[in-house]
Amino acid sequence: MSRSVAHSPPAASSSRPAQRPFATIGLIGRLGSDKVVDSLERLVRYLVRDGYEVIIEDRTATVLPGHGQVEASRRMLGQRCDLVIVVGGDGSLLGAARALCHSGTLILGVNRGRLGFLTDISPDELETRVGEVLAGEYELEERFLLDAELYRNGVSVGNGDALNEVVVHPGKAVRMIEFELFIDGQFVYSQRSDGLIIATPTGSTAYALSGGGPIMDPKLDVITLVPMFPHTLSSRPIVIDAASEIRVHIGETNQTYPHVSCDGQTRVVAKPDDVLVIRRKPQRVQLVHPVGHNFYEVLRSKLGWSSRLGD
Amino acid sequence: MSRSVAHSPPAASSSRPAQRPFATIGLIGRLGSDKVVDSLERLVRYLVRDGYEVIIEDRTATVLPGHGQVEASRRMLGQRCDLVIVVGGDGSLLGAARALCHSGTLILGVNRGRLGFLTDISPDELETRVGEVLAGEYELEERFLLDAELYRNGVSVGNGDALNEVVVHPGKAVRMIEFELFIDGQFVYSQRSDGLIIATPTGSTAYALSGGGPIMDPKLDVITLVPMFPHTLSSRPIVIDAASEIRVHIGETNQTYPHVSCDGQTRVVAKPDDVLVIRRKPQRVQLVHPVGHNFYEVLRSKLGWSSRLGD
Amino acid sequence: MSRSVAHSPPAASSSRPAQRPFATIGLIGRLGSDKVVDSLERLVRYLVRDGYEVIIEDRTATVLPGHGQVEASRRMLGQRCDLVIVVGGDGSLLGAARALCHSGTLILGVNRGRLGFLTDISPDELETRVGEVLAGEYELEERFLLDAELYRNGVSVGNGDALNEVVVHPGKAVRMIEFELFIDGQFVYSQRSDGLIIATPTGSTAYALSGGGPIMDPKLDVITLVPMFPHTLSSRPIVIDAASEIRVHIGETNQTYPHVSCDGQTRVVAKPDDVLVIRRKPQRVQLVHPVGHNFYEVLRSKLGWSSRLGD
Amino acid sequence: MSRSVAHSPPAASSSRPAQRPFATIGLIGRLGSDKVVDSLERLVRYLVRDGYEVIIEDRTATVLPGHGQVEASRRMLGQRCDLVIVVGGDGSLLGAARALCHSGTLILGVNRGRLGFLTDISPDELETRVGEVLAGEYELEERFLLDAELYRNGVSVGNGDALNEVVVHPGKAVRMIEFELFIDGQFVYSQRSDGLIIATPTGSTAYALSGGGPIMDPKLDVITLVPMFPHTLSSRPIVIDAASEIRVHIGETNQTYPHVSCDGQTRVVAKPDDVLVIRRKPQRVQLVHPVGHNFYEVLRSKLGWSSRLGD
Repeated sequence: MSRSVAHSPPAASSSRPAQRPFATIGLIGRLGSDKVVDSLERLVRYLVRDGYEVIIEDRTATVLPGHGQVEASRRMLGQRCDLVIVVGGDGSLLGAARALCHSGTLILGVNRGRLGFLTDISPDELETRVGEVLAGEYELEERFLLDAELYRNGVSVGNGDALNEVVVHPGKAVRMIEFELFIDGQFVYSQRSDGLIIATPTGSTAYALSGGGPIMDPKLDVITLVPMFPHTLSSRPIVIDAASEIRVHIGETNQTYPHVSCDGQTRVVAKPDDVLVIRRKPQRVQLVHPVGHNFYEVLRSKLGWSSRLGD
Repeated sequence: MSRSVAHSPPAASSSRPAQRPFATIGLIGRLGSDKVVDSLERLVRYLVRDGYEVIIEDRTATVLPGHGQVEASRRMLGQRCDLVIVVGGDGSLLGAARALCHSGTLILGVNRGRLGFLTDISPDELETRVGEVLAGEYELEERFLLDAELYRNGVSVGNGDALNEVVVHPGKAVRMIEFELFIDGQFVYSQRSDGLIIATPTGSTAYALSGGGPIMDPKLDVITLVPMFPHTLSSRPIVIDAASEIRVHIGETNQTYPHVSCDGQTRVVAKPDDVLVIRRKPQRVQLVHPVGHNFYEVLRSKLGWSSRLGD
Repeated sequence: MSRSVAHSPPAASSSRPAQRPFATIGLIGRLGSDKVVDSLERLVRYLVRDGYEVIIEDRTATVLPGHGQVEASRRMLGQRCDLVIVVGGDGSLLGAARALCHSGTLILGVNRGRLGFLTDISPDELETRVGEVLAGEYELEERFLLDAELYRNGVSVGNGDALNEVVVHPGKAVRMIEFELFIDGQFVYSQRSDGLIIATPTGSTAYALSGGGPIMDPKLDVITLVPMFPHTLSSRPIVIDAASEIRVHIGETNQTYPHVSCDGQTRVVAKPDDVLVIRRKPQRVQLVHPVGHNFYEVLRSKLGWSSRLGD
Repeated sequence: MSRSVAHSPPAASSSRPAQRPFATIGLIGRLGSDKVVDSLERLVRYLVRDGYEVIIEDRTATVLPGHGQVEASRRMLGQRCDLVIVVGGDGSLLGAARALCHSGTLILGVNRGRLGFLTDISPDELETRVGEVLAGEYELEERFLLDAELYRNGVSVGNGDALNEVVVHPGKAVRMIEFELFIDGQFVYSQRSDGLIIATPTGSTAYALSGGGPIMDPKLDVITLVPMFPHTLSSRPIVIDAASEIRVHIGETNQTYPHVSCDGQTRVVAKPDDVLVIRRKPQRVQLVHPVGHNFYEVLRSKLGWSSRLGD
């Protein structure tokens, strides 16, 4: 289950830094954007001035020459930081979340300009909102991830993890794939289609939504299976328990080698008769939101729910 | 949470009737079908011969002249029976389930011919399958219901309960209704549409499915909200926690009096500015399945998942 | 076929009024809106000053006390006017179009504020744009209408016409209807659903679009049939030739009396075994657009095609 | 426009072969199927016995050792045959149709077992039905094809033709592509999606249907544009005149090289800033059907329109 917990600052009897909820802050930024560099520089200044230890992800450091802080790998960030701030779009946060879920590090997202589903601090309120979070005023939300493992003759030949979705697809598009789907060992259907999207609630507002899947409350412990352009016209998205084991048996007579993507990046290439097993990961992402964060408000804004067909 | 529990018969050390899991069996049948009457008569003979006390629902009794058993109202059936067998379609079972959920009586569905999602014993295996259930070989599944209550100026003016879905619709079709939706007090959207379907997992394979909602595993404790022909083209089905309180505020300037239907039958007519509150009922339906019942097998059969577009 | 013709003003060798393309202008306004009254008053002043004969629809006249112009019924407007200007939303224009299609009168739509698909002059450019049209600078577009006739035992018992769509629906919602569909005498399917939308290209951006129908170029001579919440999940919208005869045979065992709506207003109530016949009307609506009118621009604006899911 | 014409045999005043509508018959078969070989052998025997000149496509000839007939390329078949019979699935007929459309040769499809949309003679009625066609009892239906041409800096760099559909897609799936769509020079929208399907009425029951496009009467002269998993949730299929010029401008900043497929086979790979132009081909496929062929009957059978959700 994902839990949303409101944290309030500890009683302000003293202002010793030791009482601050976070001491070491990691920074990760999306490469290739001046706006991101600008936000990162402002963050470094702000954090250093307030006495925080700042660690900059090594790849991010390449766009911050002369930053004067410690550099470390993404994995080290997880081990040493209390909080990692990610500056970029939802895509940047997905990558950070997958890397940091093992250490249970808290993650805060700052978007580059447009509101994101995961990055909900906008650059123009950067210091104010980050300041509130650092003062302990934040909401913590756990999000689960998926673990995808590909088996060939019973032996694992590759894996990946995803916060949004795992997608099985032909690799070279416009080629049907054939597979059988099993949930907790029960046969569900044999399908010919462009593939299958297995999405978390977090991913339900991303690719799965374009494919006709439902929006799912991020707190739910469920998974949605969305068929992509299925030959069987009565195929529909199916919502199942996130504790289920999902097994996709690639058809033996398949003429193509299906790809398995996690959050949009190909992780493994399957062969006919391979079996892809998808399970919820035991570790969860610890997502930090400013107090008052509202899922439906983000939805209304991102999906343009104010525009209407008629007058 | 809905639970699915496999029951096995008590150790067969003796064959005294007292050890049988059920002593008093109620019978409810769909009216207006000779096939149903035939199945009911077979059931009466079978049950009486095996020494069960049989109580026939009073309305059902009108089609079984000379049956020689006790008659009682549907509500009394709930109080006096250990198990109620419903012969008919899914619609008949919906009605029985709403009436019997208060007493926690176990319910077994026998379909009239075509396989149902809820009535999964077919007439040609009537005695065999019912016999197995009576011997204690069955799976028990709990399904939750929805409670819909309509408030006018803060005072309740009507209510209803539903195992499949609550629908808010214009009453006289081809008239948009306007409403605001709130989930657990949070504003979700203001919508102009033909209405809103609020469906349980049980109902996800019924009306909500025709409207584009996802199929939901019947064991899940979630609700899906399906907008009907919404003006806002980016409106999508939303899946939320079944513990949520759903509030539909009928627009004050609405030109029509929206109807509130539960499982397909109008229960209340709303006025502009009324508030409809929908919650999960505390009581659950106790649904009995033969051992080996398989949700996906029913889906494949009912939705024709073997038919494909191409060759 | 619908034709779109660009008209240019006659050679300006002289400025005698007789050369002006229109002499008598009719005015129709949506009732109940101060903005509409304001636009109508501006139009009367503008037209009278420029020497046009102005005829005001009698119902519209009730909101223009002391207007000093001739009043006439909608039908008379068709006979006496060269051009009728409709102030309101798309709904107002639908009504005017049905009344005026018999006389072939040109129709120009002025919207009340929000851009419409049919009313494409906005109030703030009222005099400029109307002036251009009156000077002969306009594009003429023909749109076809549907004629719906209900037969009982072979005898017509009612009819209606529609510019957007004919809808067969249960009347009292949440009641399936059963019907058989025939196109040019060929059996298409027998269906159980909430009804059927039979839409023109004009109507393809209205109700049919909410129901999953495709957008159709308004110039096309085709009709789309959109099933409403069909039981058969593989049912899909079908696009057919507008010259086809569409026959909907209401099922004999139907438990409800289906309503037939034209452009959103119930015209006839059907009985079981009735036959509804829908054909393209011989008369067409003559729609006037300012030069440069662009269907896709209206679509982009009305459907919010600039909003995107991702960043 | 596609035309459907019923042909009746010439007056039977004499039985001289010269009066038979066809003299030279070509044969094309799908490779890799024993059933196809069996049907081809039966056809050769039948045709030779009745005195027809038979020409076998050279690739097909490889599975018919010792057939004793003339062999020729697919293109030569078009020049020398009055009728070409294709044995296989709809896919085989698509390929033959593209090759034969230039010569205007009549094409008859024999399916391998399952009913096809294009191959509507089943093997068990092979001689009877083919005999009727050879006797002149058939219906001729014209179907249009699409021509896709890719331009780079104004110069054509590749092309293809399609009877079903042209698809622009990322090649490596799970990569959005960005493009701008223009119809007859008018800007329609800028889109980020998995691609775009441009389908003929013939193709409307194939890939486009899985993607949510409408079914289109094969006689119509229209094209449907179906967005694939669009980011903009209000995107919808658009039906336009088949005489339109469709221009897809691949976004300059695209990170992937989109593929252009025709009837499921990649023809060209585009670069950013390339322009794909799609037009109706001047040549049409001449499709031969047995008398009484019924599009809706095929639809009902292929789409399982007899299966229904409820009882």
